[in-house]
Amino acid sequence: MIKPRTMPGVLELLPLDQIAFQRMQDVIRSAFERFGFLPVETPAIEFTDLLLTKSGGETERQVYFVQSTGAREQGQEPDLALRFDLTVPLARYVAEHEHELSFPFRRYQMQRVYRGERAQRGRFREFYQCDIDVVGKDSLPVRYDAELPAVINAVFEELRIGEFTIQLNNRRLLRGFFESVGVSDAAQQAAVLREIDKLDKRGADAVATTLRGESFQFASEVVERIMRFVAVRSGSHGEALAQLDTLPDSNETLRAGRDELREVLNMIQAFGVPEHRYAINFSIARGLDYYTGTVFETTLDAHPEIGSICSGGRYDDLASQYTRSKLPGVGISIGASRLFWQLREAGLIKSSGSSVQALVTLLDEGDLPHYLALASELRAAGIATEIQLEAIKLARQFKYADRAGIRFVLVYGGDEQARGVVTIKDLSTGDSFAVDRADVTRALRVEIAQGETMAEVPTA
Amino acid sequence: MIKPRTMPGVLELLPLDQIAFQRMQDVIRSAFERFGFLPVETPAIEFTDLLLTKSGGETERQVYFVQSTGAREQGQEPDLALRFDLTVPLARYVAEHEHELSFPFRRYQMQRVYRGERAQRGRFREFYQCDIDVVGKDSLPVRYDAELPAVINAVFEELRIGEFTIQLNNRRLLRGFFESVGVSDAAQQAAVLREIDKLDKRGADAVATTLRGESFQFASEVVERIMRFVAVRSGSHGEALAQLDTLPDSNETLRAGRDELREVLNMIQAFGVPEHRYAINFSIARGLDYYTGTVFETTLDAHPEIGSICSGGRYDDLASQYTRSKLPGVGISIGASRLFWQLREAGLIKSSGSSVQALVTLLDEGDLPHYLALASELRAAGIATEIQLEAIKLARQFKYADRAGIRFVLVYGGDEQARGVVTIKDLSTGDSFAVDRADVTRALRVEIAQGETMAEVPTA
Repeated sequence: MIKPRTMPGVLELLPLDQIAFQRMQDVIRSAFERFGFLPVETPAIEFTDLLLTKSGGETERQVYFVQSTGAREQGQEPDLALRFDLTVPLARYVAEHEHELSFPFRRYQMQRVYRGERAQRGRFREFYQCDIDVVGKDSLPVRYDAELPAVINAVFEELRIGEFTIQLNNRRLLRGFFESVGVSDAAQQAAVLREIDKLDKRGADAVATTLRGESFQFASEVVERIMRFVAVRSGSHGEALAQLDTLPDSNETLRAGRDELREVLNMIQAFGVPEHRYAINFSIARGLDYYTGTVFETTLDAHPEIGSICSGGRYDDLASQYTRSKLPGVGISIGASRLFWQLREAGLIKSSGSSVQALVTLLDEGDLPHYLALASELRAAGIATEIQLEAIKLARQFKYADRAGIRFVLVYGGDEQARGVVTIKDLSTGDSFAVDRADVTRALRVEIAQGETMAEVPTA
Repeated sequence: MIKPRTMPGVLELLPLDQIAFQRMQDVIRSAFERFGFLPVETPAIEFTDLLLTKSGGETERQVYFVQSTGAREQGQEPDLALRFDLTVPLARYVAEHEHELSFPFRRYQMQRVYRGERAQRGRFREFYQCDIDVVGKDSLPVRYDAELPAVINAVFEELRIGEFTIQLNNRRLLRGFFESVGVSDAAQQAAVLREIDKLDKRGADAVATTLRGESFQFASEVVERIMRFVAVRSGSHGEALAQLDTLPDSNETLRAGRDELREVLNMIQAFGVPEHRYAINFSIARGLDYYTGTVFETTLDAHPEIGSICSGGRYDDLASQYTRSKLPGVGISIGASRLFWQLREAGLIKSSGSSVQALVTLLDEGDLPHYLALASELRAAGIATEIQLEAIKLARQFKYADRAGIRFVLVYGGDEQARGVVTIKDLSTGDSFAVDRADVTRALRVEIAQGETMAEVPTA
């Protein structure tokens, strides 16, 4: 007997949780599609020479290699691995199919990625990412950077998990600022940005101490200017623009970054995103080195401890390893498995009811054809219906429905048949009512529609 | 520069094909849910000791092993592998979560599986399977076997890929028959069944010759009885029942199998499956050894060369390797990637239009806020809308929409604004018409709804 188990670091859900997770995925997908993004799916397995071309950062060192039985028997080194994100596969996809795609290429992709890292609570080895990217050929106007916050706004508004803020910054503006305080070396800038990224975790004092300390040796005046700069946040659209206006006119890079950020802010407003949903935050740098302009993070106002639930940014060139074409783009990513897990931990998502809406009970096996006809009728009307096919005690059939999260139980026994009615019991309220046999489908549709409307009333 | 490419044996689709594939998946999922099946997803990676417990058949020899960078560096043997089907993960899942599930447990699962086999045309190394299973605890009435053909009927009716036939047989009946002609040894029965499974490919004469030949050495009379038996097909419900009635009353196994098959046939009829959609076919055995009762295959009437597009059957015990509980069940599987590929090869599926329904063009950058407001309005009404954010020539914007498969192009230039209208061009017909600005959303919804109704008129 082998103990049934999964490897640590995967999110395997029981059916009711899986239904809740799928509803979340459906909301995300529907918003992506409404904004005109096209679906793409790529294989989980990629060639290692394609997958592992970048600088060899943290993620690459945590890859899962893949090898068929045959390749292993031949003693080969693995030339396949599982993707660790959806960006490298996107780059490969766009480069491979470049001449068959229309640009700007707007794709969404919602698939699992794999990281062979050490298992620890809240870290996943297999998880869903939900990505959108707009990829231009040769150029892509900065306006597209503003469309992604509009998508983020739609997604999280519809997920109904509380108020959120899309935090914006610009890498060019950051670079220009650091140049202006004398930190011009790219490697040193990167090191400072890594420190600043820890601001929320370590606190301002700790970061300032590090910048003053041995590894950086910045003058106090420089550290103060840096700390003042990275503390900048905005509370409204007007305040964000005013903050940009107060920036010194130090150099071309800073000016370019500031102008981009201003354009993005104004476009976000034009896209109709409410102004309490976005803000500038000069401490946001994003770890990934390939972001070159706009960067985004999204936080839940009531749950800052969750960190960013949707991040991304603008990059200059997506696929320089695979093609000579210049492919600038902008993208965001939602780590759906982690998000779901965190929302559940924070009590913001509860297991929903079943996707099964009605159970047709079985009382008399001789009446089975009647029950089957009833179930077929409901299904034809789009009502997800299960039918009990074994004549166990009625109480047990009710208990089963209750445990399985099925809301409506239908009883159509000899008594009901004589009266030409079906008894519907709503397990969510305990109410029972009889409806004409001919009217069952319509009545149940009304009940279900009412339930859906009520579920839309915010509970927090 | 690294050549962008995927490994052979994967089905990577361009966006319009991906949309068509996704629509197929949506139809399947929707039917599964309507019949009261619950979603389950399991990790792609399983422990090898769990995955590779069965008899070590063909599939197991073609597994992809998985190993993290860390585990490789430590020189370990891989203890992880990618699933090669969804049945072993289901067995593991049910055994692991047994006490948290309600039985009969009705689950659907639509995920990719992996087979490390030699690449050849039409054979996939990574492909979607769409499975449903009903798993009972201790027992599961044979009636459940009849519900799956009802699901198959709904799925393929809605996929609109032509008429199909669900072919039914019963393994018990087969065993009973072979016993009755003196083939009682289990191993020999299995060998005969493997031959019979080749009937459609090799033809009756070739199979008969093999059965008479060295490896079997059956008497001519026995071979004749076998060939007569496996040639049995039915053309109607009544004929199917009549065929069962003519079977000799040879032994208990045959009688039991016959009674099961009769009950399943009658229940399929009661489920409302039209009688031209199902038939008995005594040559169907299904390769997998774990089927014990009802077995199914589904074929497209006009495309027998495609083979079975949906197969499955009844098994006595799902998870005997992982639990002492007895878990009998019945299930079916659709190999969606292969099916899609074959349907496309046969010309039965064409690339659909884009999921993007409307393109808002950009004429004057100064008017961008008007265009953004228009796009937001359409999106809020559920119309998938892309907005052009770069003021390239209008002709190029139309060309882009045409190439991208977007049906409606909206023009809202200075002229239209002065008249208070928006010009809508339907690229599928070439028709243009102006509608009041305030009426755009409603007008477009009507057009889209009409398009959907027309798409439902069969074209073959």
